[in-house]
Amino acid sequence: MDKDTNLRSAAEALYPEWERLSEAQQDALLLGARRVKYKKGECVHRGSLDCIGVLLIEKGGLRVYMLSDEGKEITLYRLAEGDMCILSASCVITTITFDVHIDAESELEAILLTPDAYAEVCDENIYAECLSYKILSDRFSDVMWAMQQILFMSFDRRLAVFLWDEIAKSGEDTVSFTHEQIAKYTGSAREVVTRMLNYFSSEGIVELMRGGVKIIDREKLKALTR
Amino acid sequence: MDKDTNLRSAAEALYPEWERLSEAQQDALLLGARRVKYKKGECVHRGSLDCIGVLLIEKGGLRVYMLSDEGKEITLYRLAEGDMCILSASCVITTITFDVHIDAESELEAILLTPDAYAEVCDENIYAECLSYKILSDRFSDVMWAMQQILFMSFDRRLAVFLWDEIAKSGEDTVSFTHEQIAKYTGSAREVVTRMLNYFSSEGIVELMRGGVKIIDREKLKALTR
Repeated sequence: MDKDTNLRSAAEALYPEWERLSEAQQDALLLGARRVKYKKGECVHRGSLDCIGVLLIEKGGLRVYMLSDEGKEITLYRLAEGDMCILSASCVITTITFDVHIDAESELEAILLTPDAYAEVCDENIYAECLSYKILSDRFSDVMWAMQQILFMSFDRRLAVFLWDEIAKSGEDTVSFTHEQIAKYTGSAREVVTRMLNYFSSEGIVELMRGGVKIIDREKLKALTR
Repeated sequence: MDKDTNLRSAAEALYPEWERLSEAQQDALLLGARRVKYKKGECVHRGSLDCIGVLLIEKGGLRVYMLSDEGKEITLYRLAEGDMCILSASCVITTITFDVHIDAESELEAILLTPDAYAEVCDENIYAECLSYKILSDRFSDVMWAMQQILFMSFDRRLAVFLWDEIAKSGEDTVSFTHEQIAKYTGSAREVVTRMLNYFSSEGIVELMRGGVKIIDREKLKALTR
């Protein structure tokens, strides 16, 4: 497979509405498209300073966050293989009036669509436009979840306190309870526990295992209990 | 004009993609639609407990906010005449996984579209679907703005921005809100607002009066917003 064919078939697999685009629109998207790689921790997008384009993630993950003037960071959400990162092209999306920062969380490989080509296709094709906004409303939900955690801080703290007390009691690093049981003990719902444990896991605080939770960063867990 | 004609012409004026709907889709939206009124301060939507439908605002304003288990409120954004309130129909929008609360900020008159009819038309018509997501991505920007205010700004600046925006909106020198209400809108506590307003007053920026705040030094207030 030559380079162009390869890029085309990868874009086809990663861009959800590919079949709805005309051949000319597909060509337009591919014209300036190229493969990009980022090292773990590398900055992909720096707020209003950048507008590199839309990333179709083939491998690795991204972290999208807010950065204050004083350097304080707030993680908004994370993207993984198969996801489409749109906010790195926010300059061409009129409904988006805010800036975020984006880092590669692990070695990243992606297809980069240029902002101009992307905007042009969204202008011409209602399905492409709709896809953009739909993905953004998904991210809206992610951000609302993060905001709830940060501003109301009740359940993550409650869960951290529970896990901390358990390892203090047993002297071990593993808490051998199912999510269902933890939900009972913390007065919550199983789904809420699962979601929060996944969040703890993505933050490197715990490791999820069959029938239990292993604490891998006691300091971070302790900090959450305060 | 009879009641039906009146409702149709009002919906036509308020729903941005009306011309893109087929006649059958227009009829479907109007079938269960009705005019609703809410008193100032009345609750329109209580998180996951409600799913009344989409509101096309004819008169008055809405405040959309998050509510914690402990009763803490965080204002996310406000809607006014001519706006479309979609999160009051969040149960039929799959990308929205969070709950908000919505109150009438002033005497409200709106056209209510039922969630089922709205979902059906969005399913059938890509322009209607796209409009939904587009409005949501506008709200995403609003929420990001609120989040930046709350998480990154010191409270004196936040309060100054709030007062500045209010006098810019009304064209008057007086902001007719109680400390309690200002606390709600700025995501703070009443005591904190009172303390900061007393400080602003001692600095000669505002004058405190019954049920409101009068701005007496616009220059100083403006300086604080930067």
